[in-house]
Amino acid sequence: MSGPEAENPGDLIASDRVEGTAVYNRAGDRLGHISNFMVDKRSGQVRYAVLSFGGFLGLGNDRYPLPWSILNYNKDKGGYVVDLDREKLDEAPRHLPGVQPDYDEAYGRSVFSYYGLIYPW
Amino acid sequence: MSGPEAENPGDLIASDRVEGTAVYNRAGDRLGHISNFMVDKRSGQVRYAVLSFGGFLGLGNDRYPLPWSILNYNKDKGGYVVDLDREKLDEAPRHLPGVQPDYDEAYGRSVFSYYGLIYPW
Repeated sequence: MSGPEAENPGDLIASDRVEGTAVYNRAGDRLGHISNFMVDKRSGQVRYAVLSFGGFLGLGNDRYPLPWSILNYNKDKGGYVVDLDREKLDEAPRHLPGVQPDYDEAYGRSVFSYYGLIYPW
Repeated sequence: MSGPEAENPGDLIASDRVEGTAVYNRAGDRLGHISNFMVDKRSGQVRYAVLSFGGFLGLGNDRYPLPWSILNYNKDKGGYVVDLDREKLDEAPRHLPGVQPDYDEAYGRSVFSYYGLIYPW
């Protein structure tokens, strides 16, 4: 088995090992993989893990910023599990690969609200 | 000019754009580049930006975990600036590329202490 946590037995994970890690829903469907994190410049807090969803090797896929807290690592699967189905993602906030959103407060609130979370900043 | 902040005008930066970004000291010497972040699994807090120091394309370089807070992005340089010289790095906590330290509390304290910082966790 491989996966970011297998390589990092402590409480910390390496960003470059999380990038590319598979994301599954609770039914076991592979939704996509993590393309990257979005990190607060000043505090160093990771705000989003960005899911790349669908397509061959993720090229041209839409990007879905997910609040960090909704991802749970599953050792057996070697990937992250989220309580989301494809229908939920159909309507979710997303952007094209080369087109970053502004990630301002209004955008952050809309993303967190979509996943039923309070925007904490 | 390129650099992670040029691509991310807001308060957030993308992890995969920071990886590979150059790190300079205050004298303008290029020390190396960021190889990756180390992130707290539960909280999503970035604890270290890992500096890859010396050598061609960074292969085989030692890795120096730096507390996130000592890095400052400099737009003109297109990279991070740290108040460290090579002599300080000569004695700094480091590890080989494929050999992760445990990143336990004792290790964290030793790293933060080396850079004159209080370990905040």
